[in-house]
Amino acid sequence: MTRPFDVIGTTVPKRDGAEKVTGRTRYLHDLVLPRLAHGKILRSRYPHARLVRVDARRARALPGVLAVLTGDDVEPRPFGFAKDQTALKRGKVRSVRDEVAAVAAETPEIAEAALALIDVEYAELPAVFDPHAALAPGAPLVHEELGGNAHPLRYQFSCGDVDRAFAQAAGVVEDSYRLTFVTQACLGTMVAIADWDLAGNLTMWTTTQVPFLYQRDLGEGLGIGGDRVRVLQPPNGGNFGRGLDLYPIDVIAALLARSCRRPVKVEFDRVEEFIACPGREPCTIRLRTAADGDGRLLARDAHVTIDNGAYTSWGSTTPYVMLATVAGLYRVPNVRFDTTIVYTNNPYSGSMRGYGNPESTFAVESQMDDLADRLGLDRLELRRRNASKPGDVNPQGFVLTSFAMTECIDAAAEEIRRDPPPLRPGWKRGVGYAGMFHVAGGARIYRSDGCGAIVKLDDFGKVSLLTGASEVGQGSETVLAMIVAETLGVPLERVDVVNSDTSVRPWDVGTHASRTTFIAGNAARLAAEKLKAQLLEFAAVELEEPAARLDVKNGVVFVRSEPQRRLPYERVVRAGHLRRGGRVLVAEAFYDPPTTMLDKDFQGNVSAAYTSACQAALVDVEPETGKVEVCRIVSAHDVGRALNPGAAEGQVHGGIHMGLGYALSEKLVVEEGQILTQSFMDYAVLKAADMPEIVVRLIETVDAEGPFGAKGLGESGVIPVAAAVANALKDALGVRFTELPITPARVRAALAGRGASKDGR
Amino acid sequence: MTRPFDVIGTTVPKRDGAEKVTGRTRYLHDLVLPRLAHGKILRSRYPHARLVRVDARRARALPGVLAVLTGDDVEPRPFGFAKDQTALKRGKVRSVRDEVAAVAAETPEIAEAALALIDVEYAELPAVFDPHAALAPGAPLVHEELGGNAHPLRYQFSCGDVDRAFAQAAGVVEDSYRLTFVTQACLGTMVAIADWDLAGNLTMWTTTQVPFLYQRDLGEGLGIGGDRVRVLQPPNGGNFGRGLDLYPIDVIAALLARSCRRPVKVEFDRVEEFIACPGREPCTIRLRTAADGDGRLLARDAHVTIDNGAYTSWGSTTPYVMLATVAGLYRVPNVRFDTTIVYTNNPYSGSMRGYGNPESTFAVESQMDDLADRLGLDRLELRRRNASKPGDVNPQGFVLTSFAMTECIDAAAEEIRRDPPPLRPGWKRGVGYAGMFHVAGGARIYRSDGCGAIVKLDDFGKVSLLTGASEVGQGSETVLAMIVAETLGVPLERVDVVNSDTSVRPWDVGTHASRTTFIAGNAARLAAEKLKAQLLEFAAVELEEPAARLDVKNGVVFVRSEPQRRLPYERVVRAGHLRRGGRVLVAEAFYDPPTTMLDKDFQGNVSAAYTSACQAALVDVEPETGKVEVCRIVSAHDVGRALNPGAAEGQVHGGIHMGLGYALSEKLVVEEGQILTQSFMDYAVLKAADMPEIVVRLIETVDAEGPFGAKGLGESGVIPVAAAVANALKDALGVRFTELPITPARVRAALAGRGASKDGR
Repeated sequence: MTRPFDVIGTTVPKRDGAEKVTGRTRYLHDLVLPRLAHGKILRSRYPHARLVRVDARRARALPGVLAVLTGDDVEPRPFGFAKDQTALKRGKVRSVRDEVAAVAAETPEIAEAALALIDVEYAELPAVFDPHAALAPGAPLVHEELGGNAHPLRYQFSCGDVDRAFAQAAGVVEDSYRLTFVTQACLGTMVAIADWDLAGNLTMWTTTQVPFLYQRDLGEGLGIGGDRVRVLQPPNGGNFGRGLDLYPIDVIAALLARSCRRPVKVEFDRVEEFIACPGREPCTIRLRTAADGDGRLLARDAHVTIDNGAYTSWGSTTPYVMLATVAGLYRVPNVRFDTTIVYTNNPYSGSMRGYGNPESTFAVESQMDDLADRLGLDRLELRRRNASKPGDVNPQGFVLTSFAMTECIDAAAEEIRRDPPPLRPGWKRGVGYAGMFHVAGGARIYRSDGCGAIVKLDDFGKVSLLTGASEVGQGSETVLAMIVAETLGVPLERVDVVNSDTSVRPWDVGTHASRTTFIAGNAARLAAEKLKAQLLEFAAVELEEPAARLDVKNGVVFVRSEPQRRLPYERVVRAGHLRRGGRVLVAEAFYDPPTTMLDKDFQGNVSAAYTSACQAALVDVEPETGKVEVCRIVSAHDVGRALNPGAAEGQVHGGIHMGLGYALSEKLVVEEGQILTQSFMDYAVLKAADMPEIVVRLIETVDAEGPFGAKGLGESGVIPVAAAVANALKDALGVRFTELPITPARVRAALAGRGASKDGR
Repeated sequence: MTRPFDVIGTTVPKRDGAEKVTGRTRYLHDLVLPRLAHGKILRSRYPHARLVRVDARRARALPGVLAVLTGDDVEPRPFGFAKDQTALKRGKVRSVRDEVAAVAAETPEIAEAALALIDVEYAELPAVFDPHAALAPGAPLVHEELGGNAHPLRYQFSCGDVDRAFAQAAGVVEDSYRLTFVTQACLGTMVAIADWDLAGNLTMWTTTQVPFLYQRDLGEGLGIGGDRVRVLQPPNGGNFGRGLDLYPIDVIAALLARSCRRPVKVEFDRVEEFIACPGREPCTIRLRTAADGDGRLLARDAHVTIDNGAYTSWGSTTPYVMLATVAGLYRVPNVRFDTTIVYTNNPYSGSMRGYGNPESTFAVESQMDDLADRLGLDRLELRRRNASKPGDVNPQGFVLTSFAMTECIDAAAEEIRRDPPPLRPGWKRGVGYAGMFHVAGGARIYRSDGCGAIVKLDDFGKVSLLTGASEVGQGSETVLAMIVAETLGVPLERVDVVNSDTSVRPWDVGTHASRTTFIAGNAARLAAEKLKAQLLEFAAVELEEPAARLDVKNGVVFVRSEPQRRLPYERVVRAGHLRRGGRVLVAEAFYDPPTTMLDKDFQGNVSAAYTSACQAALVDVEPETGKVEVCRIVSAHDVGRALNPGAAEGQVHGGIHMGLGYALSEKLVVEEGQILTQSFMDYAVLKAADMPEIVVRLIETVDAEGPFGAKGLGESGVIPVAAAVANALKDALGVRFTELPITPARVRAALAGRGASKDGR
């Protein structure tokens, strides 16, 4: 059998890889502009305090200081999802992240010195750090004007008769799962560079991953139209959801630049990145699951309590995805879901890879094992019996087209038992499984989930793809180039991808929800198809055959029935350009998937495709020390089609690394509103040597809507890991861990008390 | 009468103006990249010498030196129009501009120091600096392999029976006109920054004005495909034709960067700019003109001898335009034209605003006055009788459509006599006239004279025009934005122009031949028309009316018959994007004018429109000192339509400044192959205080093919000035000056000898 494709399905190194590993990539951090000024931000000393006095006179007098701004110097323009924060705080501070003042100076050192010269008089206020305490009568109010700390956001869903289902169940399990703060730990910190021209247009170089929404939001935050904001995204060292929202750093950079009439760069150092980068939200998930005697799920009932922190960013909206897991991970006819989102004086959270799904999957998949134990069923068999299938429509109305959950379970089960390493004396071993359900064909959270593409072909045969999609390290540049090369029939190295300037790119909603390959890929494919048609029209003249009888492959245009009649495609392009009435080739397309937003009852079909995965973890644990060693993770994924198998595996590897950190080691320690982990000495990201053997199985279902059959994969790897590890530990030790990270101390405490400790450190 | 347009026809400041005059523009010179290395070029000490030894060892040993290249270190890849030069010379040098070696170092200072450490042993060769001497038997050979110094290039044209016409003429005039070296004197010197990625792709930031031809040429000069070259054009301080060719600076920057694996910047200092920037070619024009007794032109016979210098750039090809003037400036049925182009050991010339036309117009228009004198006719009347008219097809086959030569003559005559300033005692006054004929609708010198445009409209109503056209200071950005704004019916400030990156722009042949407004303007207009049609389709849904009944004006879409039914266009765009099956708006177009290249007999119709101008100069001269003071220049131009009248006037002002320098003060002094003028102390560019009153008359003929009726204007201002001034001086003094510049010394010498001196200093 000949391979159906020339480029698709081959492993192609990431285009930006060689430049990155050899230190040649010019990151946003490296950008220098003439007259560039450097901005720094002064943050609150207290988690909750009145600002009695902010006196910047000494700072302003420091030589080399170009601008000092406090909340009183700028118009307060609320921004963000709930419009509950401003860039520079006025009157009071609500968390230690709160921005009290900002300085622009000739050098970062002068700016730093100036911060120390700003005299801030605080009147400390009683603060509240626990959602339950925050809801108690008489608790200190984070936002007085709301009259309470309960957040107006609420995600309430109901389907079927949950109470009856529980009443009739053969087995019910119930537990509470506690998830803590973690952070993206991007190697490249957050940066914003702002530059105004004399006509009042603003150019931003930023770590955003949603440049077109950022235009709008930043415009609002500054009181200008989005059309005045041009967004450029030079390479940055990771994002993982961090760039999904507008944050004070962006607004402050722009305000400082406006004030000192120079370009201003605000660049977080590592400490600031830990303090001010909005990561994954802490939450408690109370979950009950009911099943009949055969293990068939009857109902789930979930209540999520989110510590919202002082302001609202995307962390507050993660129940949107948690609900999708509770209602969609396995077939379950009766579902109830509710939330309590509470303002506290903690820092707020943003979005982070998986976006609620690692949290809810930890709860749901832990409970699947407990349910199997309760019913005396095999854990894999329980999952197989409940696995969703193609054609299913789930309680929210999500329509499953291609869907290989059963195959993923089988693949994970098959690989995890293969040639296990020897077990060391004094250690115990367990195997755990966890499935996953996630969007894989976009996620309509905005009225458009589309992406545009322009493809241009020049006289030298160089193809430029101008895509709306943002490359934030995930490899989209490479896979989009592959899609264009395959569609056009030209060698991959002839395709350039341009993806970092809103002035030249067509619109895209941004990099999130594992949507880029699917959505931007379809847009690129459609534009390339149009261009190919034009190319064949040119060739029809040169080869004297109707275009319908021609094709292009490997850069050669040929007559399909007489392949020896052929021309290099760049010759065809030049001939078409240079003849009388000639032209150059440009084509464009916009792809918006055929999906619907959720309605007020959280019903709809948000994605054009859904995917599943199953992970298996082979975990050794030393009861004496509590040390946990993950020996192997098998990760089986329904990818639709693996466009770039090596890159797909790489995404899964990265996800597993992040998931294992979530499971075992990562915790942003926040005590009394203060962030105690401020370096990689404290915040335990797993090192390469800590990583287990990883076996990835890519299962190809060839989705009918996806580009060449592909589906999204960017987040899948991270989602089930914690659950699989916790299930393996239960298998090894008989103890259920309901709180992350599962540190040695927590293991020892659990074994000592046969219950999970509340303190993981 | 209501104005037919909202934007077109209004004077709009140049978009880059405010940033430039406030010092905020980031020029190419200001660009800094991480790890940027600095390149310097060692040039020949002698105009003609064997390179006996080039020893770079001491330079290579200097700390901070990253690469040293000599001709022996790189493959010799000939480039340029006649493929007769290489970037680094091997074996021998042929002019003092010749590049012997190049250094890249950590700083420009180290690179400069390293140059001094390169030991070059020369064996001086007899040299030749005069074309006539160069053709003498036994003259030293510049290129031995050619067997002689005569250049293979020759422009030979004949139409009608010239000899018979001369034999039958009532009046014949004949003279020789000597034109010297001048240089563009750009305030921003030439710069090339080269940066290779690990995959072998090259990014160039350059002063080119033909980025797409540059891609091809630089690829050839480096032995790579043009598809590997990405060209970026940050703002630069003037070009005036300097950027029309590939020069050694570009190749050397790329070679150095490849050698030291870092980005390399080569930036000329002012001295080097005088030595190495290829300016206007020195030439002698022998011209005879014949007329009948009524002053009707019967014939012209011209022979141009060009000092080609040591290599071939566009300076060698200017007879192409000189011929167009000889055959096309006024009606003349019989024309003979021939050239002698000769290699010498002088520096070679490139292209410079007007490209042969100021030279030939100086000859032709000087001779028109002499002919009037000979026949006893009024100078203006002679011109009116011979003026070309719409519908004319000239001896080369140029088809004149809109053409207002008579109106230009009348306008110039009318304005020049208005309220003359008082004449100082001891001074004499003259009035001179000169017409001009030039392409104004492109100039097909390459098989495509086209330009592409992409127009994109975002959710905020921001329009981006991605144009192939290059902004080199001429104001094309502004006028193209106006064309798009007018066509789309949106406010001008909502239109952005993106014009500096070959990866995102569609093809364009480059900025030359006054073609941008016409060609790129038509492309932009066509793309905007397509976009407008799409916008009205969106609006048809929102306003519930067929698109054909709608229009857009000032950013408002309305029902033509019920203008109160209206919507802001950005709302229409958002509605069309955010509805089910929505999309964003992108449109593209390519415009290549309906013209033909000249055939081997120099017959064809190279431009879609031609233009004329007439200038009048009111000149005072003090015979005692030879001091010449131009009091007023009137410049009347057939502009088709003045899209941006202020900018059009500005172009004419700039041209007059350059033309007056050519006429009166500018001379690049080259003696024995050495360039003696190396600063603005020696090279007398006119200062603001030296400038006369300028009166510009823009005559609107509304060309049928031009965008909104416009025609090209970029070069017209410079072309007739020298002739008009020389004619005014003859009017004042009775002396014909046939050599430029007409310095006070030359005036005194002429008055003393009643003949023009050969030495103008």
